[in-house]
Amino acid sequence: MNKELIESRYRELQLHICKELELLDGKAKFEEDAWSREEGGGGFTRTITQGAIIEKGGVAFSAVHGHVSEVMRKQLDLEGETFFATGVSIVLHPIHPRHPIIHMNVRYFELNTGVYWFGGGIDLTPHYVNKEAAILFHQGLKDKCDSHHVDFFNEFKPWADRYFYLPHRNESRGIGGIFFDHKDESCGISKEQLFQFCIELGELFPKLYKQQIEFAPVSEPTEREKNWQLTRRGRYVEFNLLHDRGTKFGIYSGGRTESILMSMPPLAEWTYNFKAEAGSEEEVTLGILSSPIDWIK
Amino acid sequence: MNKELIESRYRELQLHICKELELLDGKAKFEEDAWSREEGGGGFTRTITQGAIIEKGGVAFSAVHGHVSEVMRKQLDLEGETFFATGVSIVLHPIHPRHPIIHMNVRYFELNTGVYWFGGGIDLTPHYVNKEAAILFHQGLKDKCDSHHVDFFNEFKPWADRYFYLPHRNESRGIGGIFFDHKDESCGISKEQLFQFCIELGELFPKLYKQQIEFAPVSEPTEREKNWQLTRRGRYVEFNLLHDRGTKFGIYSGGRTESILMSMPPLAEWTYNFKAEAGSEEEVTLGILSSPIDWIK
Repeated sequence: MNKELIESRYRELQLHICKELELLDGKAKFEEDAWSREEGGGGFTRTITQGAIIEKGGVAFSAVHGHVSEVMRKQLDLEGETFFATGVSIVLHPIHPRHPIIHMNVRYFELNTGVYWFGGGIDLTPHYVNKEAAILFHQGLKDKCDSHHVDFFNEFKPWADRYFYLPHRNESRGIGGIFFDHKDESCGISKEQLFQFCIELGELFPKLYKQQIEFAPVSEPTEREKNWQLTRRGRYVEFNLLHDRGTKFGIYSGGRTESILMSMPPLAEWTYNFKAEAGSEEEVTLGILSSPIDWIK
Repeated sequence: MNKELIESRYRELQLHICKELELLDGKAKFEEDAWSREEGGGGFTRTITQGAIIEKGGVAFSAVHGHVSEVMRKQLDLEGETFFATGVSIVLHPIHPRHPIIHMNVRYFELNTGVYWFGGGIDLTPHYVNKEAAILFHQGLKDKCDSHHVDFFNEFKPWADRYFYLPHRNESRGIGGIFFDHKDESCGISKEQLFQFCIELGELFPKLYKQQIEFAPVSEPTEREKNWQLTRRGRYVEFNLLHDRGTKFGIYSGGRTESILMSMPPLAEWTYNFKAEAGSEEEVTLGILSSPIDWIK
């Protein structure tokens, strides 16, 4: 199993996910933007806007290689001279405030020293938390994890809780999901099996999102719901620009800005010292985001 | 001249500026929010919304003290056990796309070791750059600098160009202004004179903004202008959350989130790979932001 195979399977995964999301949306189609970087490699960024369900979304594939820069050496604590990295990254911002924002990423990294690892995750950011939908989401991730490794879910679920967290707000970005990084065969399964796990996670992604969409009510959103969505999107921006290590590393190391920031919402709002009304649904959601929950007992 | 005097003069400065801005706006009034921090000190955050001119703005005063934490020691390269910091920070987001966003900050910092410094700056972020207005703005800053120190403008103007810069966009936040930090009597004027400079800069601020407002046209904004404003506000968010050292230090060191993020715009937009139309006013503005300009020859 070499890097060329991983690269081509990730590219296929991107196209597969886009097809599934187009079916789900039923209106908008992805547009593709090809780019390359001077130092080596490039990618295909696929974006969708103004769909029936998705307001703004991106499914990005990239495969880049080059010399290990000082920034990488320092921030990623790497040894080696050259690297190769490939992955698929997704963020979808739905139109309806009762539909959740969703994020997925699978990635593979290797150095000329022979060191390699896989990383990835899926997490859900509902504007309004629906407990049954949250359980469904976590159950889907748990089933997938369990079918590959007995410890994955127990390890990756709290990892997501730690990762998708806004310390300056004392709140989680959403209801979490799974997150993992630096996984190689020392975790107890082979490189091939780890890769297969990443591919299957990618294939699970559109199914999980479809489930969330189908679960949510479809009535016309109220002004109040729409305003709350804009505020929650503001928090999404704060997480990605202030805390997300992937975004920060990409930006500071000179990655392709438009592909990295395709995660930004179409529109976001900030109100000074916003307080949710006592007893409101908005306040209930904030309460749920204030500490990690084991959705599956 | 002790820290209590500086603190009380900065608080007066805040109130003076708010009064001037209320006169300029003619409709909205500032609301005040008092806060304190466990470790020592606190502040008064004054915010204004939905005015005739200002859509969302904040004029914050704080005076805090405490032990020099590990984060401070590392990020600010400090020696000493306890610190005191006081300052006034302002960001105003206007309603009209032809009115500029403006920012001001004056601050004072001291350590128990006797080390102290002043810092500050004013910079302007027009959604559409008007060259005559830009020259007026820089001339006002130059006159104020020149009346205090022959080198200030030549030093502080390029400092602002370096500071208010988005490397990931290859563009300046706006047309710059002045920025300075770590200034003590070694710059050639006394502590009293430096403080006087900071106070006068604060007093100049509402005059400079009034000049900008009076200079701009007052016709009803078009949809195109409003959309462009939302996009430029997105860039403002990117600068503040990804690059602004003040914001990042405040957030990562556990500062008061709402006071730090009062700089966020009311509403901001992101469009994947936005391109300004060839030959349009928007493209002209982007061209101006692509490299620093000496507005005063």
